[in-house]
Amino acid sequence: MLKKVVYPDRATWPELIKRPVQEYETIEEQIKTVFNQVRDNGDKALLDFTAQFDKVSLNSLLVTPEELKVAAEQIPQELQLAIRQACANITAFHESQREVKFPIETMPGVRCWRKSVAIEKVGLYIPGGTAPLFSTLLMLGIPAKLAGCQEIVLCTPPRQDGTIHPAILFTASLLQISTIRKVGGSQAIAALTFGTESIPAVSKIFGPGNQFVTVAKQMAGKYGVAIDMPAGPSEVLIIADETANPAFVAADLLSQAEHGVDSQVVFVTNSEKLLSLVEESLKEQLNNLSRKAIAAKTLTNSLGILLKDSTEMLAFSNLYAPEHLIIAVKEYEQLAEKITNAGSVFLGEYSPESVGDYASGTNHTLPTNGYARVYSGVSLDSFVKKITYQHLTPQGLQLIGPTVEVMADAEGLDAHRQAVSIRLKSLSHV
Amino acid sequence: MLKKVVYPDRATWPELIKRPVQEYETIEEQIKTVFNQVRDNGDKALLDFTAQFDKVSLNSLLVTPEELKVAAEQIPQELQLAIRQACANITAFHESQREVKFPIETMPGVRCWRKSVAIEKVGLYIPGGTAPLFSTLLMLGIPAKLAGCQEIVLCTPPRQDGTIHPAILFTASLLQISTIRKVGGSQAIAALTFGTESIPAVSKIFGPGNQFVTVAKQMAGKYGVAIDMPAGPSEVLIIADETANPAFVAADLLSQAEHGVDSQVVFVTNSEKLLSLVEESLKEQLNNLSRKAIAAKTLTNSLGILLKDSTEMLAFSNLYAPEHLIIAVKEYEQLAEKITNAGSVFLGEYSPESVGDYASGTNHTLPTNGYARVYSGVSLDSFVKKITYQHLTPQGLQLIGPTVEVMADAEGLDAHRQAVSIRLKSLSHV
Repeated sequence: MLKKVVYPDRATWPELIKRPVQEYETIEEQIKTVFNQVRDNGDKALLDFTAQFDKVSLNSLLVTPEELKVAAEQIPQELQLAIRQACANITAFHESQREVKFPIETMPGVRCWRKSVAIEKVGLYIPGGTAPLFSTLLMLGIPAKLAGCQEIVLCTPPRQDGTIHPAILFTASLLQISTIRKVGGSQAIAALTFGTESIPAVSKIFGPGNQFVTVAKQMAGKYGVAIDMPAGPSEVLIIADETANPAFVAADLLSQAEHGVDSQVVFVTNSEKLLSLVEESLKEQLNNLSRKAIAAKTLTNSLGILLKDSTEMLAFSNLYAPEHLIIAVKEYEQLAEKITNAGSVFLGEYSPESVGDYASGTNHTLPTNGYARVYSGVSLDSFVKKITYQHLTPQGLQLIGPTVEVMADAEGLDAHRQAVSIRLKSLSHV
Repeated sequence: MLKKVVYPDRATWPELIKRPVQEYETIEEQIKTVFNQVRDNGDKALLDFTAQFDKVSLNSLLVTPEELKVAAEQIPQELQLAIRQACANITAFHESQREVKFPIETMPGVRCWRKSVAIEKVGLYIPGGTAPLFSTLLMLGIPAKLAGCQEIVLCTPPRQDGTIHPAILFTASLLQISTIRKVGGSQAIAALTFGTESIPAVSKIFGPGNQFVTVAKQMAGKYGVAIDMPAGPSEVLIIADETANPAFVAADLLSQAEHGVDSQVVFVTNSEKLLSLVEESLKEQLNNLSRKAIAAKTLTNSLGILLKDSTEMLAFSNLYAPEHLIIAVKEYEQLAEKITNAGSVFLGEYSPESVGDYASGTNHTLPTNGYARVYSGVSLDSFVKKITYQHLTPQGLQLIGPTVEVMADAEGLDAHRQAVSIRLKSLSHV
């Protein structure tokens, strides 16, 4: 099952926290071709690539009103309610991130403030594949709407029958996202980068995807389009002590393991007994899973690390900088205070990661691959710029002007000084 | 002087807002060599490159306590006071950006919050060259300190005599930045990326620089190091109407023009008369500048655009997305409300850009090259991650659990559902 590591020396930690290296260079040429084709041939290239890569022949990338209507009818009432509840919670939490304008006077007559202004055009990419990730659409669409982005373009690949999964369409309707396009893969990212007849170019692209999408998003950056964050396989690190429920820990490890065989699953404990019990429970629970094969394979690459005490567990976690961190120790609040690197933290016995993945309110688009050391997860901030403003009264300028003159002089920037001096002079003549 | 454009048709605007294309590919190979050398040979490579590029032979990259002491004595009292005043204002404004922890209950028993946590290790790059940019050190060092970054590494190239400009050293001392290294150019960025004997590797690199530094920062990104924002030449756009003072407008245009011949200077007005008067004043003021040659050259590439009315001026500015925007019209407040794309905005007659460049409190590290559509300038946020947290009570999980189970099911993620179900089951047995 888990690769067990018992009381590893600190010198070996840097090796333990290493993620598998993502080698993308081999597909860069292919993505470059896709970008060039989409830039030159627009929608036609998109339809061609969709036929080639997705094996679906479409006449149009658009979703018909009929398709939208049918989608709502296909979603069971229970799922509709669940999505609405998640939507309400995610909205509430992201609304709480709104920054209020708060002007301050740094000196009398010198007023500065900043204001959050929506990024006008954003693209949301929702992958296809086995699972229809309507939850990711909630995580990206809700803050985009709250921020007030004027153009929100949703791209998602069509299924074999040329339609989009109804849960995605239902969620898009709920969020009032009306620009929905049936296109996936690197061609979708290229379309959002350059714009085509049916897809507007955007300033920032959000969303997960496979290696082709990842490389395409990097390439979009070269054309001046921003992206949400660098991508990598999903991760969880669980810190647990002898008070933790082994079955809960095992269930949380499995919920990460089922994502894909490249998922990173790390279990850190100071209790040898818990480590054994968790291993037993893993075996037991694994048998009941539909994605058993994937989860079992992932576990063979996963770590079960025995460490001395809380201090070591904390240090290891901060060094690892996990995307998701579950703290299932008795004194979880004290440990939580000392977390320096993590995407999202789940505290105590009754806060499984899956609650945050779907519905508690926090965002599930989070930094992986150690990027939690420096990046935040997606939030309302991801959809706005914060523009600074300043206004000086004549008296304010008289007060601060001499400071600016002296500094500009010292940096040898004459004209910078002059822009102040000429105004001060005019005021002294009044 | 200015390139005049009279009532340009909207169809021509996309051409007008174009910035010169930065072609960096030719130096990429050179930078790659520098990176490899620094990774393999550490400090020795840095000393070699410093000899080669900066023509300075150093024995050590470190600054001696003696050098620091001497620096303070070399700074005139007046400049010391000015730097202290600027420091106070910048501190006040950036302190106001601090986010307070604000937990919310999205449902009873489901508590979510986020917390700003400093990025542990950051690198600040301050270029050498003609002007000692101690103001940029204030703009980067103050928020880094306020955020609580534990390791702040300042790299700046030595002067011909092997020392660092005393104003930089004085400012570093004032900010209590103690890790100061005499190294510049792409080799400094490489050192911050990989770490060397005397330079710690960092997670994020901030600061301006020439094309070598710009390409090196891009390359740092490939090694997992974050950067403040994509770089480009500095810009100002001024919107002014007939009420504006032509001499003030001209002075502001010149203060941008003196930065360098690649500076972008755009003047937009609805008053033909003002346009003429500004041109006259430009000629007059130009003669008094020490950097006259640079400013004059820049102006020949600069635009003076006559537009119909406020609506057009606003639309043009939002399309251009300037780094600095000065609004010198009578109703500047109304116009300011409608700005959607800009780095920093200066309102009214007495708010020249140079005040914000140095001392009012706002940050002067701002998005250029149209990136103001999507990026914010440097702020306290740039030095922190915002980690989300959640805690559920057993009752909270009972309330939200079924929602998560239904959604996980619909996405085909069994183990995600199980992580909730197993807990709900245990609670129902209590």
